[in-house]
Amino acid sequence: MKKKNKKVNAAILIIGNEILSGRTQDKNVAFISNWLNSKCGISVEEVRIIPDVEKTIVKNVLHLSKKFNYVFTTGGIGPTHDDITAKSISKAFNVKYEYHKEAYSILEKYYGKIKFNDGRKKMSKMPRTSKLIYNPSSAAPGFITKNVLTLPGVPSILNSMIENCKNYLTKGSKVYSKTLSLYTVESNIAKKLGLIQKKYKKIVDIGSYPFFRLGKVGVSVVIRSTSKDKLKKANKDLLQLINLKKIEILKI
Amino acid sequence: MKKKNKKVNAAILIIGNEILSGRTQDKNVAFISNWLNSKCGISVEEVRIIPDVEKTIVKNVLHLSKKFNYVFTTGGIGPTHDDITAKSISKAFNVKYEYHKEAYSILEKYYGKIKFNDGRKKMSKMPRTSKLIYNPSSAAPGFITKNVLTLPGVPSILNSMIENCKNYLTKGSKVYSKTLSLYTVESNIAKKLGLIQKKYKKIVDIGSYPFFRLGKVGVSVVIRSTSKDKLKKANKDLLQLINLKKIEILKI
Repeated sequence: MKKKNKKVNAAILIIGNEILSGRTQDKNVAFISNWLNSKCGISVEEVRIIPDVEKTIVKNVLHLSKKFNYVFTTGGIGPTHDDITAKSISKAFNVKYEYHKEAYSILEKYYGKIKFNDGRKKMSKMPRTSKLIYNPSSAAPGFITKNVLTLPGVPSILNSMIENCKNYLTKGSKVYSKTLSLYTVESNIAKKLGLIQKKYKKIVDIGSYPFFRLGKVGVSVVIRSTSKDKLKKANKDLLQLINLKKIEILKI
Repeated sequence: MKKKNKKVNAAILIIGNEILSGRTQDKNVAFISNWLNSKCGISVEEVRIIPDVEKTIVKNVLHLSKKFNYVFTTGGIGPTHDDITAKSISKAFNVKYEYHKEAYSILEKYYGKIKFNDGRKKMSKMPRTSKLIYNPSSAAPGFITKNVLTLPGVPSILNSMIENCKNYLTKGSKVYSKTLSLYTVESNIAKKLGLIQKKYKKIVDIGSYPFFRLGKVGVSVVIRSTSKDKLKKANKDLLQLINLKKIEILKI
């Protein structure tokens, strides 16, 4: 029986002035996208980075949650005044922003009753109807509201939570990929590469990315497809092109 | 005479499947944003990462160029089939996509007549009316079309071109900033930090970011303002708060 080619997509919404200002280098986009690709067959089709401004968060959450199967937000769920993601998502979906019983009790247990101050209590407030994404590093959970999964901004904490998102996601078809790193320049293979892309239009996606290695220039050609068979065929065409042009392959 | 507080903003549009898929870690957002902040007094207020798809590029270029003073695009101006940024920007602004005389002659001179093949020629095609952003690394220029500045995706090349954008930009007010890195946890200062932010609402922006250093947790408090005077005052309030709570400052 032929397997159905199911496309599932997602967007990532990075919330935080520190990323926009360039003070902090984002690392969450690459991590989440790689994980979604390899573990869930879900492809990220848009990323937005926006400031900690309520109406901007509301607008973007609504837009992206309509357009994509899933939205991952990162940042803005800590205890300080600039952490307004949970409240903004409540506004976006017009549901009450309130203490989540289980989250409250997780945090109370983690900090102990005496040290469980207002800032820490705040981290258990979220949109009513949300379900928890457990946090094995620092207790404060993320949550899912409709199709929006809300995670913290600190990469090490986010990374430790990502597997706990799996239960909330419908898997898509796995995307297979193959990379050939070649000692050549793009313009030497551009024309033929274009022809190969044309031949496998919409079935195989071919990207070409220059690299520099030990003083030599090169091109990484990445081919991606949900069809293993078509990927194999496109790869064969590619190898033929390389042979024709006598191009050396970089062996890593 | 009181200096006018002039706000100039920008958006960054990262074009490239390799960034969306997580294969390549973006480094251009932090670089461009830091440069715009520190050298031009321009603040980046939105970033989008989108695939190499013409109608998506057209839509986003139009949207962002209306909303912000400047848009910086990165990626998709090389010689291969997936480099469609220049053509898409022509479509967005409904101007002809054609060889730019000066760009053509720069590239012809750089490669020599014999090696100036179709792929390389393509890199001199851009929207009519564009002005060049010179490239001291690899010759192929970027360009500005209306308020959209188009740069390559390879960080080292982009970095070498950034100063050549300056002539096309109107400067805004410089944003001053101060960072205090403290050995404490966010929830210990959250309440008072919120009060300080309230006091300087819209004049000083206060952000709080957890960090981990040599096994110890801490918080970096970043205050930013176009007013040197208000920044000084907010900083004084902040130091008082730290004294009250007996918090150690991390000296780097």
